[in-house]
Amino acid sequence: MTAQPDQTGSASGQIIISVDAMGGDAGPSVVVAGIAKSAKKNPEVGFILHGPEDRLRKLVAKRRVLDGRVVFRDCADVVTMEDKPSQVVRNGKNTSMWSTLESVRSGEAAGAVSCGNTGALMALSMLRLRRLPGVTRPAIAILFPSGNPQGFNVLLDAGADIRADARDLLQYALMGASYARNGMNLPRPRVGLLNVGTEEHKGKAELKEAQALIADYAERANYEFVGFVEGSDIPGKRCDVIVTDGFTGNVAIKTGEGTARMIGSLLREAFKYSPLSRLASLLAVTSLQRLSKRIDPRRVNGGVFLGLNGTVIKSHGSADATGISAAVKLAFTLAQSGFAERLAARVASAAALTQDEPAPAGAQAEEQESR
Amino acid sequence: MTAQPDQTGSASGQIIISVDAMGGDAGPSVVVAGIAKSAKKNPEVGFILHGPEDRLRKLVAKRRVLDGRVVFRDCADVVTMEDKPSQVVRNGKNTSMWSTLESVRSGEAAGAVSCGNTGALMALSMLRLRRLPGVTRPAIAILFPSGNPQGFNVLLDAGADIRADARDLLQYALMGASYARNGMNLPRPRVGLLNVGTEEHKGKAELKEAQALIADYAERANYEFVGFVEGSDIPGKRCDVIVTDGFTGNVAIKTGEGTARMIGSLLREAFKYSPLSRLASLLAVTSLQRLSKRIDPRRVNGGVFLGLNGTVIKSHGSADATGISAAVKLAFTLAQSGFAERLAARVASAAALTQDEPAPAGAQAEEQESR
Repeated sequence: MTAQPDQTGSASGQIIISVDAMGGDAGPSVVVAGIAKSAKKNPEVGFILHGPEDRLRKLVAKRRVLDGRVVFRDCADVVTMEDKPSQVVRNGKNTSMWSTLESVRSGEAAGAVSCGNTGALMALSMLRLRRLPGVTRPAIAILFPSGNPQGFNVLLDAGADIRADARDLLQYALMGASYARNGMNLPRPRVGLLNVGTEEHKGKAELKEAQALIADYAERANYEFVGFVEGSDIPGKRCDVIVTDGFTGNVAIKTGEGTARMIGSLLREAFKYSPLSRLASLLAVTSLQRLSKRIDPRRVNGGVFLGLNGTVIKSHGSADATGISAAVKLAFTLAQSGFAERLAARVASAAALTQDEPAPAGAQAEEQESR
Repeated sequence: MTAQPDQTGSASGQIIISVDAMGGDAGPSVVVAGIAKSAKKNPEVGFILHGPEDRLRKLVAKRRVLDGRVVFRDCADVVTMEDKPSQVVRNGKNTSMWSTLESVRSGEAAGAVSCGNTGALMALSMLRLRRLPGVTRPAIAILFPSGNPQGFNVLLDAGADIRADARDLLQYALMGASYARNGMNLPRPRVGLLNVGTEEHKGKAELKEAQALIADYAERANYEFVGFVEGSDIPGKRCDVIVTDGFTGNVAIKTGEGTARMIGSLLREAFKYSPLSRLASLLAVTSLQRLSKRIDPRRVNGGVFLGLNGTVIKSHGSADATGISAAVKLAFTLAQSGFAERLAARVASAAALTQDEPAPAGAQAEEQESR
């Protein structure tokens, strides 16, 4: 598992990240600005950049810091936000998105970053990188600002799949805990299962089943299971990893983001109200900047696709250079910690264990243990 | 429908609200403080107060403003937060919650307010007040702070039932629009259906079906249907009423509330950071108060149970006097507008229409129109 020096991408000690220059709302110039920002901060990162080579070469040539650190892969086509995933899977061979994933698949790059169409990126990732053995539904894990010391909680699934059964939720718990350990340096993350109340009798049948499974694996997989948690615990302190299906997860994070945005605009209004409040806002400007930096979605830009053979980061479609740079940093950190290999090992051992267990909750197939 | 003078509770022009003094986290003294606050602001409100009469009489005697405006109903038992709804339905006859609903059922009061156990309150409300004809699942509608001119959006279901099929979602749209019209004075509310994206092909099957039904009723029921909306639209400006199932709705509002709370505490931290920022916070104090008043959950305390024969307001269990007073004000406003009767009429006419339509989506039973 670890005998893959190619995964780090280069002999020079550099870690190579494969970057899709196309598909974001702001176009390739912002992507190039973002990787330049990363390159400036981090001398150990190098890039494979995918898109129309002529155009990209010109943009890269303007950034001194990128000299000799970018390899180009020429691609004529682009996946747009309107393209349906099924079309892209069939006809997307010449797109920059496909090419970006190909560099991870071949082992040339340690991770991929794309601002493109989420559905298409997930579909292509499943097609080209394949799911890890034992994973039925890959998930998107995002970081949400929280009151915890690490500043963020992991939530998954943030929208890869609108469905999840009890087994999928168990996989999310395993993958989310592994991500928190490697990406946030939490040795024994606290995992919570999202529900409408914390009482054991509440919620849907699959949640009760998942609760039992996740509790059962806590010891072996080295996480603490805090049981059911509520929406208020997503930005809260009760746990570090919040597990839910992709429908609920997607609605929750967008509600949280929308609420933060609304408060920000009300705060600006409040400070414009009177001459005294305008003066106050001048004095408060650094405090407010500190706050907005703390909850700035660009700083934690990037949903990580979990459950695949390889690391794929989905950056916001509207990401600016700061956002792209944050996504590259995340890909770099995960590559450096050997996350992909550790996650694969964790999920494989859990898959071996779950295969021996009865499907929903009962007793059967005990004899299969000896196979 | 409107020839029910008893609904307003008294011949003197007062509107009578039935209030459960027990079951809140803070006990009856806070409830009495809350109704005193309401009584002070609003000379047209009177109360029936339910709980241990001796104790309540002493509390009420301390508040001059309540002189002659409170009728007591002695009840020995209290529904606790731990009681299961099924137990309360079987054995709850002597509880203050049961008695509170009884005053609405008999027509003595125009609405009920309780801080008690939500599940028990909904179960008892369904048992004693009964659902409106045509309503399968009653819903809890809450107000969420938003960027819209009215300051709040209506979200339902906030957690009455974790399930909802397409027909239920249509009923929620009708009831939510009616609530927005009567409670917030919006003649033609904009209704959105919560999903993981705004594209028509996204989401679960029942959502696509609900989308067609809700679009179909927009004209007749006098609302504008904006189609699918996302979590970010709950505090946003795209619509006034957000329709979803009780599981998703509950998670979304708690995520939004938790996010607001987290930002509030980060804001306080930011202002404590340096002497300059502490000075700024002194100057900013009125601006910040303006903001916190704007999003204060106590100001919009109260989920309204929709779909029953009578108005029931569920106040937060942890509500203080301001919160109780806000819940009473909401009950009063809805009673004054004749909301219960208007909603019943609206739902009844829709029920008559839907009965003529094929169950999921197709064509049958056209001949039943003549029945």
